[in-house]
Amino acid sequence: MLEIEVKARADHLQLKEQLSVMGAVFVGVQHHCDTYFNAPHRDFATTDEALRIRSVNGRSVMTYKGKKLDTLSKTREEFETEVDGGTTRSILLALGFYESGIVRKTREVYKYENMTICLDKVEGLGEFMEVEIGAESDIEGHRKQIFLFLEKFGIGEEDSIRTSYLEMVLEKQ
Amino acid sequence: MLEIEVKARADHLQLKEQLSVMGAVFVGVQHHCDTYFNAPHRDFATTDEALRIRSVNGRSVMTYKGKKLDTLSKTREEFETEVDGGTTRSILLALGFYESGIVRKTREVYKYENMTICLDKVEGLGEFMEVEIGAESDIEGHRKQIFLFLEKFGIGEEDSIRTSYLEMVLEKQ
Repeated sequence: MLEIEVKARADHLQLKEQLSVMGAVFVGVQHHCDTYFNAPHRDFATTDEALRIRSVNGRSVMTYKGKKLDTLSKTREEFETEVDGGTTRSILLALGFYESGIVRKTREVYKYENMTICLDKVEGLGEFMEVEIGAESDIEGHRKQIFLFLEKFGIGEEDSIRTSYLEMVLEKQ
Repeated sequence: MLEIEVKARADHLQLKEQLSVMGAVFVGVQHHCDTYFNAPHRDFATTDEALRIRSVNGRSVMTYKGKKLDTLSKTREEFETEVDGGTTRSILLALGFYESGIVRKTREVYKYENMTICLDKVEGLGEFMEVEIGAESDIEGHRKQIFLFLEKFGIGEEDSIRTSYLEMVLEKQ
């Protein structure tokens, strides 16, 4: 499964009005506490991978993200499974993985056509918009579709941020 | 959580009669397909650890077992979480772990006092009995209790097998 995703800084107040006018469907609010892990045998900061346990509204999900496959978006291979968060953390630590950082955010999720739109308010970083399409192939076609959509909000390719929240949080520290 | 566990070869037909007479409670039958993984950064055959995805009656569980803490039993630290088996396999392979072997068995589970008794019929290996107590401490006390219980079946300390099913399966190949 590919996650074709574009992220940009965006003021939520204005975005929400526009999303409402165009008929985007509000899905819900999620409170994320994301713990990122690095590996004992290779440095994910170099290989551009990510291993995360997300605690969201009391449930936990483990996610692996492969290196980015595209220079214009955040497209990458992604695997995700629901887990017991505490036990999985213990397993990763026992295997020699270690915590590299924690990102806390509030995410408002909207659906529009085949896109998932996330309005993220990240602790210490500010407000962002992420637009995502899950697909098996055609990175370029889906990326174009996302950028066409973002144009409506005055967001262009030059605004796309490929730096992860984790990297931003670690840079600020 | 510690898993204080003793395993021995045992003929199931005779065992079942005795368990029934002494009032052990039959819990159920499980069909296990256990896929074991080894790590890219250390050899679990040397470190005596285990990382496994167990598919049992359609559900999947990931288990990490630390090295054995005791020379007479199979006592070790253990962490376990339910997962999506296919996705978790993909995550482990992407992280550089690799499959080291597969063990298939049918397990009949009984409860007696604070003990879990497993009658395992392992593909290619034959019939075994495993007796387990889950506890936070007191390895020696619980191990003694297990061996006192096993005496009733004519099983002594010298019959305790510390070799894992995986090792036995790999030795046979």
